[in-house]
Amino acid sequence: MSQRIIDILNSPQDLKQLSIEELEIVACEIREEIVTVTSETGGHVASSLGAVEIIVALHSLLDSPTDKIVFDVGHQAYAHKILTGRLPQFNTLRTYGGVSGFTKPEESPHDMHPSGHASDSLSVALGLAKARDLRGSDEKVIAVIGDAALAGGMAFEALNHIGHEQTKMIIILNDNEMSISRNVGALMKHFGYMRASDQYRQTRDSLQEILSNQGRMGQSLVSFGRNVRDSMKQLVIPRTMIFEQLGILCTAPIDGHNIAALQETLTNVMNTDGPVLVHVVTKKGAGFEHAENSPEVFHGVGPYDIETGKVLKKKPKAPTYTQVFSDALMAEAAKNEDIVALTAAMKDGTGLSDFAETYPERFVDVGITEGHAVGMAAGLAIGGKKPVVAVYSTFMQRAVDQLIIDNALPDLSVVFCLDRAGFVGDDGPTHHGVFDLAYSRMIPNMKILTPSNEAELVHALHTALALSGPVVIRYPRGEAEGATLPKEPKVLEIGKSSVVRKGSDVALLAFGRMLAPTLGAAELLSKKGIEARVVDMRWAKPLDKAAIKAAASTKLVVTIEEGVIEGGVGQAVLEELSRLQRAVPTLTLGIPDRFIGQGSMAVLLEEVGLDAKGISAAVKKRLG
Amino acid sequence: MSQRIIDILNSPQDLKQLSIEELEIVACEIREEIVTVTSETGGHVASSLGAVEIIVALHSLLDSPTDKIVFDVGHQAYAHKILTGRLPQFNTLRTYGGVSGFTKPEESPHDMHPSGHASDSLSVALGLAKARDLRGSDEKVIAVIGDAALAGGMAFEALNHIGHEQTKMIIILNDNEMSISRNVGALMKHFGYMRASDQYRQTRDSLQEILSNQGRMGQSLVSFGRNVRDSMKQLVIPRTMIFEQLGILCTAPIDGHNIAALQETLTNVMNTDGPVLVHVVTKKGAGFEHAENSPEVFHGVGPYDIETGKVLKKKPKAPTYTQVFSDALMAEAAKNEDIVALTAAMKDGTGLSDFAETYPERFVDVGITEGHAVGMAAGLAIGGKKPVVAVYSTFMQRAVDQLIIDNALPDLSVVFCLDRAGFVGDDGPTHHGVFDLAYSRMIPNMKILTPSNEAELVHALHTALALSGPVVIRYPRGEAEGATLPKEPKVLEIGKSSVVRKGSDVALLAFGRMLAPTLGAAELLSKKGIEARVVDMRWAKPLDKAAIKAAASTKLVVTIEEGVIEGGVGQAVLEELSRLQRAVPTLTLGIPDRFIGQGSMAVLLEEVGLDAKGISAAVKKRLG
Repeated sequence: MSQRIIDILNSPQDLKQLSIEELEIVACEIREEIVTVTSETGGHVASSLGAVEIIVALHSLLDSPTDKIVFDVGHQAYAHKILTGRLPQFNTLRTYGGVSGFTKPEESPHDMHPSGHASDSLSVALGLAKARDLRGSDEKVIAVIGDAALAGGMAFEALNHIGHEQTKMIIILNDNEMSISRNVGALMKHFGYMRASDQYRQTRDSLQEILSNQGRMGQSLVSFGRNVRDSMKQLVIPRTMIFEQLGILCTAPIDGHNIAALQETLTNVMNTDGPVLVHVVTKKGAGFEHAENSPEVFHGVGPYDIETGKVLKKKPKAPTYTQVFSDALMAEAAKNEDIVALTAAMKDGTGLSDFAETYPERFVDVGITEGHAVGMAAGLAIGGKKPVVAVYSTFMQRAVDQLIIDNALPDLSVVFCLDRAGFVGDDGPTHHGVFDLAYSRMIPNMKILTPSNEAELVHALHTALALSGPVVIRYPRGEAEGATLPKEPKVLEIGKSSVVRKGSDVALLAFGRMLAPTLGAAELLSKKGIEARVVDMRWAKPLDKAAIKAAASTKLVVTIEEGVIEGGVGQAVLEELSRLQRAVPTLTLGIPDRFIGQGSMAVLLEEVGLDAKGISAAVKKRLG
Repeated sequence: MSQRIIDILNSPQDLKQLSIEELEIVACEIREEIVTVTSETGGHVASSLGAVEIIVALHSLLDSPTDKIVFDVGHQAYAHKILTGRLPQFNTLRTYGGVSGFTKPEESPHDMHPSGHASDSLSVALGLAKARDLRGSDEKVIAVIGDAALAGGMAFEALNHIGHEQTKMIIILNDNEMSISRNVGALMKHFGYMRASDQYRQTRDSLQEILSNQGRMGQSLVSFGRNVRDSMKQLVIPRTMIFEQLGILCTAPIDGHNIAALQETLTNVMNTDGPVLVHVVTKKGAGFEHAENSPEVFHGVGPYDIETGKVLKKKPKAPTYTQVFSDALMAEAAKNEDIVALTAAMKDGTGLSDFAETYPERFVDVGITEGHAVGMAAGLAIGGKKPVVAVYSTFMQRAVDQLIIDNALPDLSVVFCLDRAGFVGDDGPTHHGVFDLAYSRMIPNMKILTPSNEAELVHALHTALALSGPVVIRYPRGEAEGATLPKEPKVLEIGKSSVVRKGSDVALLAFGRMLAPTLGAAELLSKKGIEARVVDMRWAKPLDKAAIKAAASTKLVVTIEEGVIEGGVGQAVLEELSRLQRAVPTLTLGIPDRFIGQGSMAVLLEEVGLDAKGISAAVKKRLG
């Protein structure tokens, strides 16, 4: 390893001194580094491998951070991290206190913004370009965006504006064609047209030759080109492209793994006076056979075996919440043909694959367009269907207005299943689902269920489907609690909690999976002679007023939630106590008012005091 | 008036019995009714007049509500309201308890969804079409959307999906060409191309002839066509259109005021097996000369004189908050060339017209794309500029995620000026800005200023510009309080409130313009022997902890905010009291947990108990 070029690079500018051949070696070294590190840490392997040559070519031409590269969804930017001074720490990727899996300005001046939610790069880049124009300087602004992210409304809003502004900037469309099958939308079909052009096909052919010469990990790249070419349909080539109609000049598709070709095209377009879209064709997982063959597995993956590509999984103690939701929804769907399931490009992640396979006509994947998903769900509900929208909590932040205006105001019966609610672990602050309790409980007509284990999730889904009006169910990422699943789901009483442990010294009101550490805290407190009542609140809205009233008879009412304290459900409990005119001491535990980093869930929960020890310590401290 | 056809129509189906000539008379009658009523009530005159013939033609062919018309931004739908049973109540338009200015499902089964926020109609319509397909029925689904709303990302997300789904539905693009000058974005330029086609020009020519024959109010329509034609540039006609590239069949532009032409085209496309976009050219304000000439004035207008077109304004006691913001920003901008102002299609509404005129290069109107605006502001801030984003509170709901991820997470120095915060009056529930305190205070790094009068707004803007990190300033619609404006703005101390009235029986903590009724309440309480301290809290985040601590020494701590109680800043005060371990009685006054209708601000504030009388009554009741 001591012989690597990447070890002796002091800054990305050093790449300017290297020949194409040396840059190709750099790309291979980066690829090996990514594979080596992520096999230990896990990470977004497929997209980061696909963008290696794009990033090498960019840095070999640019003067970063004066020139600005804005990555859409920074999990493609591992090569960028390695080339901008973070190689020594790269083995800490996605660990607590380590290198972030996304671009992160605090980490490096080369990272423009904290990317993580798709489709925002073009807006940020246009802002940077506008700031440059106002200042009268001439640095280059480059956005790198994937084909899937381009379907997001925010990206279109920006494209439309960029075409209008006509300021100088480069948009690199990182088109990893695998997304043809996975992405939805007419835009993807449009890419299909472009891909069918002669130029595209020539690019593909030459790609194979070039890749055979790359040696080392590049070798395995050869296989994919042939398959794709063989399966490609002969489609009509349109005369003009959407982007050009929007006023954005487009290049012919170029090979995104050919550094020389990338350099040539990029050098050319850097002189263009206006916005240019460089259409770069890449392969997700490029250079690592296992990732190429299973790009979905290697999209966001845990530690894996480099030789076999097998993901190293600890034997789970319990199924994931996602899997339990998946099975529960299948059972409901079998009995209720009105159920329609929607997701926003997260079919697998939200557990809708089985549903999609069994009920293809009742399944809708809208792509990375949460706003549209929630709007379309409203239409389905008006039309008499029972839509179930499964989206990660953090991404539902994109559709807060649609929750309010399109669903809650007309009181439509839509079920919003917010997966990955609470901490998500190593993806860090852009992905933690910590705001959903706050942004959904402010909405009139909204009901919110917070199941405390997988059995409760089954009941919660059944209940939500039985209710009228909009309902949010929030549940965490990862392994559930190991509860016994019910044979038959039951309808939970609205706003009714469940006392899980008796006690009259203090009342611990737990929401969602906080029940487990709360019970642990109760045991710890018991050892100190404090008998805590533990209540599984079940509902964040409406709250169980009787339970809160009863809690007020103890010495201290404590709320425990895996969400932000500010605006969170703990403060709703304070409100209820205020209305009850009960002046009882209170303590609201949750996530404090700052962005929390990455790390294992256990470590993060400990950091914010939401483990059993933290909860019991806080209670003891408050009791004095 | 007793001779009108519209008076004897029992249902929209009755239109099927009428001849084209009779339908044209119906259109004129509707137009007169709209002008007559809105001259008293105010309303969205220009867009509603522009859509009269589209609506008459649609209802003359459809079987509503079995067939479903989804209006984007329902303020164009007055004709629809008149034709679907609401003529007798139409004179109550936009009044308390009266007919809503937008489509409203509670009001009529003919209203599909509560429109009010642009760009959502296509998603809702696609949901309705999908529900129909799943059911196997064959009703028609039509969306009516304006050209400006089409630039919104959500509309593009839906279009992209519609092109993919290929289900049968009709999109009526209500293209009121006046928007060429007002809307931004390359899409508008694209419309420009289409407008330059021969077919479009022929449509325009024939429009003039037809309109001359319409008689009555139609006469004044004649003038506009010529001007537009004369000024139209000879642009190149593209071979294909964006919509067709997305897989949506498009008609040639047709005259949106020609009922026969509309009927013919609509009849044709109703047989098309897939999505069709009908490009309809209309004139905002059509048929009412004053509205045609000043469509911006007659977009949303108060009562006016029909003869002169003069808007009837009561002599204001004070300038509007918007005007004060406008002037204050101009003063700041003169001294700080880094200030860049952004708005989302609300240049006039948010008071940025002067800024745009004086500093065109530092002004950005992104169109109806709040998400992009907030994302672009992030880019500008990263690029060293000081962006000021002026958006209505209710529309910022579309950009909650961008506030969190793109601005607050990297702690960027952007000022978000939320105009129309609190009740907006007669526009009703889709437009009330009642959620912003809840959705912005949950965000780490966010600071929130709630100026209590126009002088405080001047200081708040100055302070926000001096701070680092993201800052929200929220202020209400309409006339300010009549405070004397400061000669020089000052920097307010962070998190420092101001005691406006001394008293030690109870403490009234007022946010924003709630200060005035709170002072009124204090006077009423004083008459009953209760001396209330009144605090202008100024900051919703960070809160003034010392003031809250001091308040806890009284008999009752009351918070008063013009926003939702659930998740609102009152609950942040409860949190602070909990942390202080002060068991003082509390009362959080604000907007209760239901959607509040339309009406004058005074009436609405009284309804929810946020007037002086309501506040004092609540305090007295709580004291027992």
